[in-house]
Amino acid sequence: MVDPAIIRGAYAHMTRVGIIGGTGYTGGELARILSTHPDVEIAAMTSRQNSGLRVQDVHTYLRGYVDLTFTERISDTKDLDLVFVATPHGVAMKEVPALMEQGIKAIDLSGDYRLHDVDVYQRWYGHEHTDPDNLQDAVYGLPEFFRDELKGADLVANPGCYATSVILACGPLMKAGVVGEDVIVDAKSGTSGAGMVPAVRTHHSTCGESIIPYSVGNHRHTPEIEMAVDRFAGSHTKVTFVPQLIPIVRGILSSCYFDIEGDLTQEDVDAIYEKQYGGETFVHYVQDPSIRAVVASNHAQTASKVLGDKVVSFGVLDNLVKGASGQAVQCMNLMLGLDEKTGLNFPGLGV
Amino acid sequence: MVDPAIIRGAYAHMTRVGIIGGTGYTGGELARILSTHPDVEIAAMTSRQNSGLRVQDVHTYLRGYVDLTFTERISDTKDLDLVFVATPHGVAMKEVPALMEQGIKAIDLSGDYRLHDVDVYQRWYGHEHTDPDNLQDAVYGLPEFFRDELKGADLVANPGCYATSVILACGPLMKAGVVGEDVIVDAKSGTSGAGMVPAVRTHHSTCGESIIPYSVGNHRHTPEIEMAVDRFAGSHTKVTFVPQLIPIVRGILSSCYFDIEGDLTQEDVDAIYEKQYGGETFVHYVQDPSIRAVVASNHAQTASKVLGDKVVSFGVLDNLVKGASGQAVQCMNLMLGLDEKTGLNFPGLGV
Amino acid sequence: MVDPAIIRGAYAHMTRVGIIGGTGYTGGELARILSTHPDVEIAAMTSRQNSGLRVQDVHTYLRGYVDLTFTERISDTKDLDLVFVATPHGVAMKEVPALMEQGIKAIDLSGDYRLHDVDVYQRWYGHEHTDPDNLQDAVYGLPEFFRDELKGADLVANPGCYATSVILACGPLMKAGVVGEDVIVDAKSGTSGAGMVPAVRTHHSTCGESIIPYSVGNHRHTPEIEMAVDRFAGSHTKVTFVPQLIPIVRGILSSCYFDIEGDLTQEDVDAIYEKQYGGETFVHYVQDPSIRAVVASNHAQTASKVLGDKVVSFGVLDNLVKGASGQAVQCMNLMLGLDEKTGLNFPGLGV
Amino acid sequence: MVDPAIIRGAYAHMTRVGIIGGTGYTGGELARILSTHPDVEIAAMTSRQNSGLRVQDVHTYLRGYVDLTFTERISDTKDLDLVFVATPHGVAMKEVPALMEQGIKAIDLSGDYRLHDVDVYQRWYGHEHTDPDNLQDAVYGLPEFFRDELKGADLVANPGCYATSVILACGPLMKAGVVGEDVIVDAKSGTSGAGMVPAVRTHHSTCGESIIPYSVGNHRHTPEIEMAVDRFAGSHTKVTFVPQLIPIVRGILSSCYFDIEGDLTQEDVDAIYEKQYGGETFVHYVQDPSIRAVVASNHAQTASKVLGDKVVSFGVLDNLVKGASGQAVQCMNLMLGLDEKTGLNFPGLGV
Repeated sequence: MVDPAIIRGAYAHMTRVGIIGGTGYTGGELARILSTHPDVEIAAMTSRQNSGLRVQDVHTYLRGYVDLTFTERISDTKDLDLVFVATPHGVAMKEVPALMEQGIKAIDLSGDYRLHDVDVYQRWYGHEHTDPDNLQDAVYGLPEFFRDELKGADLVANPGCYATSVILACGPLMKAGVVGEDVIVDAKSGTSGAGMVPAVRTHHSTCGESIIPYSVGNHRHTPEIEMAVDRFAGSHTKVTFVPQLIPIVRGILSSCYFDIEGDLTQEDVDAIYEKQYGGETFVHYVQDPSIRAVVASNHAQTASKVLGDKVVSFGVLDNLVKGASGQAVQCMNLMLGLDEKTGLNFPGLGV
Repeated sequence: MVDPAIIRGAYAHMTRVGIIGGTGYTGGELARILSTHPDVEIAAMTSRQNSGLRVQDVHTYLRGYVDLTFTERISDTKDLDLVFVATPHGVAMKEVPALMEQGIKAIDLSGDYRLHDVDVYQRWYGHEHTDPDNLQDAVYGLPEFFRDELKGADLVANPGCYATSVILACGPLMKAGVVGEDVIVDAKSGTSGAGMVPAVRTHHSTCGESIIPYSVGNHRHTPEIEMAVDRFAGSHTKVTFVPQLIPIVRGILSSCYFDIEGDLTQEDVDAIYEKQYGGETFVHYVQDPSIRAVVASNHAQTASKVLGDKVVSFGVLDNLVKGASGQAVQCMNLMLGLDEKTGLNFPGLGV
Repeated sequence: MVDPAIIRGAYAHMTRVGIIGGTGYTGGELARILSTHPDVEIAAMTSRQNSGLRVQDVHTYLRGYVDLTFTERISDTKDLDLVFVATPHGVAMKEVPALMEQGIKAIDLSGDYRLHDVDVYQRWYGHEHTDPDNLQDAVYGLPEFFRDELKGADLVANPGCYATSVILACGPLMKAGVVGEDVIVDAKSGTSGAGMVPAVRTHHSTCGESIIPYSVGNHRHTPEIEMAVDRFAGSHTKVTFVPQLIPIVRGILSSCYFDIEGDLTQEDVDAIYEKQYGGETFVHYVQDPSIRAVVASNHAQTASKVLGDKVVSFGVLDNLVKGASGQAVQCMNLMLGLDEKTGLNFPGLGV
Repeated sequence: MVDPAIIRGAYAHMTRVGIIGGTGYTGGELARILSTHPDVEIAAMTSRQNSGLRVQDVHTYLRGYVDLTFTERISDTKDLDLVFVATPHGVAMKEVPALMEQGIKAIDLSGDYRLHDVDVYQRWYGHEHTDPDNLQDAVYGLPEFFRDELKGADLVANPGCYATSVILACGPLMKAGVVGEDVIVDAKSGTSGAGMVPAVRTHHSTCGESIIPYSVGNHRHTPEIEMAVDRFAGSHTKVTFVPQLIPIVRGILSSCYFDIEGDLTQEDVDAIYEKQYGGETFVHYVQDPSIRAVVASNHAQTASKVLGDKVVSFGVLDNLVKGASGQAVQCMNLMLGLDEKTGLNFPGLGV
């Protein structure tokens, strides 16, 4: 990595971005990634709770990287090119309309713009959707499957962390039409996926030496996965989704089980994934997927094994990077016409 | 719990047991449990590696509880009533024949006597089975499903930890004949299930912040589960088994997915499990299964949820207790005509 | 362990106890331990939050062991022999006076009766002490140092978890007068020591891959340790106490550093500890102290090493057992004239 | 971060480096960091164990970042500018002489060149030092205290991870001469500090729910710290060093206790640290030091609190970055006349 100051001189225009909801994990992670992005300047970060405090005093890891003070709202949006909305579900839909009206591009990291069907949204989220117009136009921000739509998009719904891992794991087989229209997803997430607000389930004494199934069969990423897959697969797939909390901080492993339709060898499977991901920067097809290989990076790994008349596919990523803020920056790059990997071209920790 | 010395006086005869392979985790755990069992005296513990050392100097947690020195072999078996064989696979079958000849009951905690078919054993374990005669007679030591056979048995094959969790989770639905003959098992185990020998996969830096699939589709508990289930279910079930290592020390959660055959409501499922386990001491049907609720005890929890046309069943236990040494003591109690819960009647930690 | 039902018949009188504050970790742990105590019957458990719920539905690990319903208050105390008060600081002093008036023995697990000096209490706890009379009479419940006072005591202040580990580690050297009157205590605790209420510091994403110093130099166990030590050592020792949270659920390791006064060899140190603890059931002097060796038991380990002109002493225990509820039961046994180890005579997990 | 390919064009000369010992954690971490360094090209990586394998197949996190094959030795050193030696103690001193003879700069990450006194080396490492000449000239690679010596150095002894954390924590007070010549260091390290070779102490079941003191009073970083401090403090400080393993993967927290000499207020302490570190890029003085704030980065945090007549200072860092490979790259930058922060200018993870 290089001193951004050295590099920036080479660019005529720095993109100016804002972050609404800068206190939470995804907001902080956005600032962390963007702080070393050569083409971007963070112009504003909002926080209700920490308004008036310096960002680096709240997120001490940003000391020396982000020299801003949290404000309650973005006071002056006129010189912003793009805004990341990292607020809870239900809040984002109140922020996005004004941005769209002012011609500011937006990436929403909540669930508000992921489900194109207003009725489905209301059934799963339990409240009305107040911005159905923009909902129609939002592009689902998974570059490996919707890259063309993302180029030039004005509003992007950044995918959920679980949904990203599942779609990356399952997409190739679904597109190839070689598996049944039914998938069982047994997903495991680190605790940072639950956000920064302390709760019983993420209390260390509760989860630190356990694995905890939750929202069994009724997690909101279920319709998200189904809707996204419908758009690129030829037919509807039904998802049975069982998330489980594991005692790690960052990382998701989703294990996805299909019935094979017709004949399918391991070689066929390997070829399908290599074809899908061989040219990708951030998604890899490997023999032994490893959270540690991708953690702290925008990379994801997939693996797929034929087991008799079934096949299991794994998807592995860092829920805060490829599962949230890193993917949002990848989308931003595409929306702005930048090289997709700008600011994201660093490997996972390995250890 | 009471001072064993106080209680023992009330019994005319103390059962004398030996433990072959006392250094490993299951051997130490047997000693830990038996040291407070009111009817049992540990007469001998063997260890190749620690022969000549005091047990309490190797297993410091047994200080004040086990006053023995490890020997290389059991020198004098004539006054033993029962021997636990806690050696690696392949070693047990060399120890058991002599015990049977001397009329000493035995419980094997390895995989040597779990697969009744010699050919299946050789295919999965990669070496010949040298004791096919006793293999025929070994009873599979899962009391909740084979209690009658265990009473008075001479040789018991103690089930594998994964297998126990899966059979407890799935058995009721399989027996009831309400699900398809096909189950997907996504199992997660703590690291103590891998034993005491350091290895790359269980090196803390490798697994401490990860979840690692291994032996995908070819773990030896697959045929064990299938064979056990065949004996009490009316038909053959095919198991797709994917084990995964999680960063906890003790505990297993197995998530088992079935297709429903015909109609099956949540109420039906609840009734099936309550009927199966309502009278059991150690196996419970609950809403929210929790490893912490059972860890350090011989208790197991099951849960089962209807999800559309599928059902997911969970099995939770401590892999070293109900998944190994505790269950072995439960079997011993049955073999000796003692109350099944003697020496095991203590709750899980909760926290 | 044996079926309590079998054993109880042998006793003419079962001690009837109540637990005020049965929802928290120490309240649940008391119930867990007492449920298999051969001489005790839990007659009542209170909980403001869970009043009306069955204990085993709140603490699912107690299913089959505790058949009670939480009540808001103990309605009928007249047949109780002893009450454990497991409430937060400041609440216990409102419960204890009534118990004393009715002639019911009490063990307080909070800090309310640990600091005999009202002024010191008020300075460290920040509110007035409303029961100074009973405060004078409370015995500090560390049996290894105050056993004689505990026999027949009416009110016991159960020590803090950190304090217990430090006093066990340091007491022998302090009593022997071979070290300076100044000790640096670097203590590390698992997260269950912080209780059941979710908070930022014990949120898994905060503490799960970290070690967090807190209350540096101003933790309330500092005066507790100093006061307790004053009573058995010949002179006042000043404690510099730095607690740190580590990502384990149960367990404390306190590392205590002294300057040596005069000559002191490792052999001298070994002799001092062996003399102090050689006859104890629950406290051991070992070469390599291990949390796993004592976790889930009432045992503690100490170790002490001469390092030039300094000496480091370690104290290790399970903060919920020897550091709280187990020690409270040990005190109860002494108060009631029972064998001190009754109901506590089981080893640590080891693994 | 930017695509190195974009940046490199701006530089006339890329520094060509080799890594001897590329399989271990520090070797892999060097490759990880250097792979995005804008001025460096990794020209060779050696590995006895993995010779002939592609680096990215051994370290899968380097896929797309390092396109090299491990060789047994560096076949052609003539075009190398600098070599990192990441081998075990005792091996480095066999590699360094040839590099020095060829005029290739070297940075040794082992302990071989840290102790300038041959006798001290031999006492602590137990074998002869075979390269005493270069030992005299090696510069201790802690830029914040030896920056001037590092500029233009030919051979650098990269500090140990513990030693770095302790010197950063204690150095300011020692230089200022306000504390006694005696420090107690209670240090806690994550398991990656023990390297990649599986062992009993780092077996997950051993350490995963524990904290383990080891090498109490005889760890090799003790003389290293003392020697380094002697060079910048006016007088000799005696270090009592007690390392402990904690169940995290990356990170060290060292807690260092001094007696205060004369008067010293918290304000004095704050001023001393601010003066020392106010101008540093990578070392910060903070109120609440946090491993998560620095993990995966080259940043370190210090904090210091007056506690009566004592003061405790904390040092926090990622043992594989500022404690090893990141610091080595920082030294390389200085040796080569580059901006010290080149390739290292990214924040810690925070979460």
